[in-house]
Amino acid sequence: MTQNPTRIALVMNEVRTKIAARSYLPGSRLPSVRAQARALGVSVSTVVEGYERLVAENAILSRPGAGFFVSGPVAPLDLAQIGPRLDRDIDPLWMSRQSLETDESILKPGCGWLPPSWMFEQGIRRAMWALARGSTTGLTDYATPPGHAGLRQLLARRMRLAGVEADTSRVLLTESGTQAVDLICRFLLEPGDTVLVDDPCYFNFHALLKAHRVNVVGIPYTANGPDLQAFELALLQHAPRLYLTNSGIHNPTGATLSPVTAHRLLRMAETANLTIVEDDIFADFEVSPAPRLAAFDGLSRVILIGSFSKTVSASIRCGFIAARADWVESLTDLKIATSFGGGRLASELLLLTLTDSGYRRHRESVRQRLAQAMAQTVERLQPLGIVPWLMPQAGMFLWCQLPAGADATTVSRRCLQEGVVLAPGNTFSQRQAAGDFMRFNVSQCTDKRIFEVLAKALR
Amino acid sequence: MTQNPTRIALVMNEVRTKIAARSYLPGSRLPSVRAQARALGVSVSTVVEGYERLVAENAILSRPGAGFFVSGPVAPLDLAQIGPRLDRDIDPLWMSRQSLETDESILKPGCGWLPPSWMFEQGIRRAMWALARGSTTGLTDYATPPGHAGLRQLLARRMRLAGVEADTSRVLLTESGTQAVDLICRFLLEPGDTVLVDDPCYFNFHALLKAHRVNVVGIPYTANGPDLQAFELALLQHAPRLYLTNSGIHNPTGATLSPVTAHRLLRMAETANLTIVEDDIFADFEVSPAPRLAAFDGLSRVILIGSFSKTVSASIRCGFIAARADWVESLTDLKIATSFGGGRLASELLLLTLTDSGYRRHRESVRQRLAQAMAQTVERLQPLGIVPWLMPQAGMFLWCQLPAGADATTVSRRCLQEGVVLAPGNTFSQRQAAGDFMRFNVSQCTDKRIFEVLAKALR
Repeated sequence: MTQNPTRIALVMNEVRTKIAARSYLPGSRLPSVRAQARALGVSVSTVVEGYERLVAENAILSRPGAGFFVSGPVAPLDLAQIGPRLDRDIDPLWMSRQSLETDESILKPGCGWLPPSWMFEQGIRRAMWALARGSTTGLTDYATPPGHAGLRQLLARRMRLAGVEADTSRVLLTESGTQAVDLICRFLLEPGDTVLVDDPCYFNFHALLKAHRVNVVGIPYTANGPDLQAFELALLQHAPRLYLTNSGIHNPTGATLSPVTAHRLLRMAETANLTIVEDDIFADFEVSPAPRLAAFDGLSRVILIGSFSKTVSASIRCGFIAARADWVESLTDLKIATSFGGGRLASELLLLTLTDSGYRRHRESVRQRLAQAMAQTVERLQPLGIVPWLMPQAGMFLWCQLPAGADATTVSRRCLQEGVVLAPGNTFSQRQAAGDFMRFNVSQCTDKRIFEVLAKALR
Repeated sequence: MTQNPTRIALVMNEVRTKIAARSYLPGSRLPSVRAQARALGVSVSTVVEGYERLVAENAILSRPGAGFFVSGPVAPLDLAQIGPRLDRDIDPLWMSRQSLETDESILKPGCGWLPPSWMFEQGIRRAMWALARGSTTGLTDYATPPGHAGLRQLLARRMRLAGVEADTSRVLLTESGTQAVDLICRFLLEPGDTVLVDDPCYFNFHALLKAHRVNVVGIPYTANGPDLQAFELALLQHAPRLYLTNSGIHNPTGATLSPVTAHRLLRMAETANLTIVEDDIFADFEVSPAPRLAAFDGLSRVILIGSFSKTVSASIRCGFIAARADWVESLTDLKIATSFGGGRLASELLLLTLTDSGYRRHRESVRQRLAQAMAQTVERLQPLGIVPWLMPQAGMFLWCQLPAGADATTVSRRCLQEGVVLAPGNTFSQRQAAGDFMRFNVSQCTDKRIFEVLAKALR
């Protein structure tokens, strides 16, 4: 019996499409010949022929007696392939990679951290010296499961000062702030769950959530916090599992949550049984502390996370989670399973640095420098027609609208050719609604060349 | 219409059971009333009544217009609840936690690392001093996406010396050896995939794979490597995606892969399109290097991982992955998404320590001390009727059979009360087939009290 080539092609396309979309996963068994024939409304022999041709192409494998399988390592989890395919210039991962490359000649107003010369260098050096003379255990041994007790105590104390009822048993150290969010996602999320994020939000949240294969819904961010009407609607429409946000100084907008918004948000979260992760990474930049969801909530459905990468050192990796004590227990198990003991050296160094008598003064001077750089950057952007969305109370970020007609991605691409890495708005926007916005890190904007390159790119 | 109480109970039990088993996930929508009624063969009103009672119990939520949902954060991913529930004394996570607790008075022949006094303390102190005087960038900045170029070069060179064709583009630094395996699992595995491990194997592999919700199949380990017949059978029966093993000195058995087994294993892996992860963490303990699967394979389907936690410092966290260049690219994306920049300080310290002129001599002296401790431990175990399964060529582990009738879990429980943490065999065994085995870390067996406590526990 001759076979219909169109139908064979139909079978082959069906399988290829499903492999590409990861509906058929690498290594998984294909539907049986009979089931596939039924599903596609073709004959069994057509499916056999289609499968055999795919075997010849190495797209699938035949295991006699066991069936047909999707070939092994041809399509592993490639973050670039999940979700909507973005222009590489506004892909969050591309953004991270550009910022992390260390070519000293590149200017990086788009990156998310302070220049090395702004960091608490002397304090870190002192901590290194002290530790180099200290106990061998600190230099060679694993950390305890929840992490360094002294650092956890210090963090709990700091949280209590900020109104968050925390004690040491509710604090877990992690390898980084990103790992903190990652562990919580592993703990609470299943692939296919829905997570709310601010729109715009920290761009790496997008990449991280992609890795967890969840649905992400962006809630427009206002000057006082998330848009509550949109938030309420999203709760009804999507029954989300988690809301991931920045507390204190919002990234990228520099906005601050108002107490009224915080209160109403928490009430909605209670009704919908929603868990909230509040990333407190910029706490040390604040001049007058904004309300924390974790303080209102008492660490019940709110999980507070943070790290020291922005204010002490990004080279010494350490983050933390503050949450319900029973969750901390389970998160500790997950941490051990997926990264074993934490970095003891890093936590010893951080404890020494944070308790250094010069740290408070250093923090104060960074705040002042940031305020000056903020004013200067606004002034330099103004002649270019680049206008801040709001004037942040503190912090390093300025979220700006470009002059009418300018596209942030195009401008960023042009500037990159001149050695200036920018952060185009849509990198931060789930809804891709920030095409004419750009985030500037004012601490990285001291070089006048940035504004010359920008002016040229805008023309 | 009055309702049948038995049928209402049936509905409620069905839902409760599925929530407990995580078939219904927290936050997920329950089957519609109609669908549930059909599935259970009861009336719609029976399901409504059952659901309403579950709402009253707070087990589920009703969202008008949207349906019924499993209550939120009541059953997040609790590793202790996944898979067969083990006696807490032989639970791998319990084992890790016991070993990681730092009560100096506790003796830990069951733990998996060297005592601090055996580590390269002077080298680490020198590295700390050098770095404390060095560039600010090293102290405060993020690492580049793939990690410190100098350390990656050094690792590639070391691999080439061991016959593994690696270059810098094929090496990625991670936060730890455990994170290296974790990233690969995220990259290659889907929940429900099958992974082969050695039986016995490093106990944290079990906890890690649990976190990825995969099926784990244990392959009996022989003195020359995995049992090839069992391996071949498992390939046919389970179509596994990955085989996770230790190269060099096997943990916990101390066995060494033979070239013949390595070659046959790789041929099978090629036929079945199986990826292999080879954990090379004990490389520096080897006296005469065993064959590496990665060397035979040319880093095509074999991924080599390792860290420095056993030989340099567990406090300075850093691991590595060597793999196909395209996989390294995707793994770098995943690393950034889930832990952002790596620990620059840790890699700078390790590079300085590994290139310290004293490191080679230190490594040599550790090997000699291990050989002496090995002989001494065997001698001290012998009067207790505890017999090594084989005499390892090198390393710190001795895998021993207890005298007839003794149960390793019971003995471990008794010894723990006397302040001695042991590593009972079933912690390492997927099939729970090592109930009369125990792993001893000879470097942690220098205190005679261990053997007195053991003798008492065995009586």
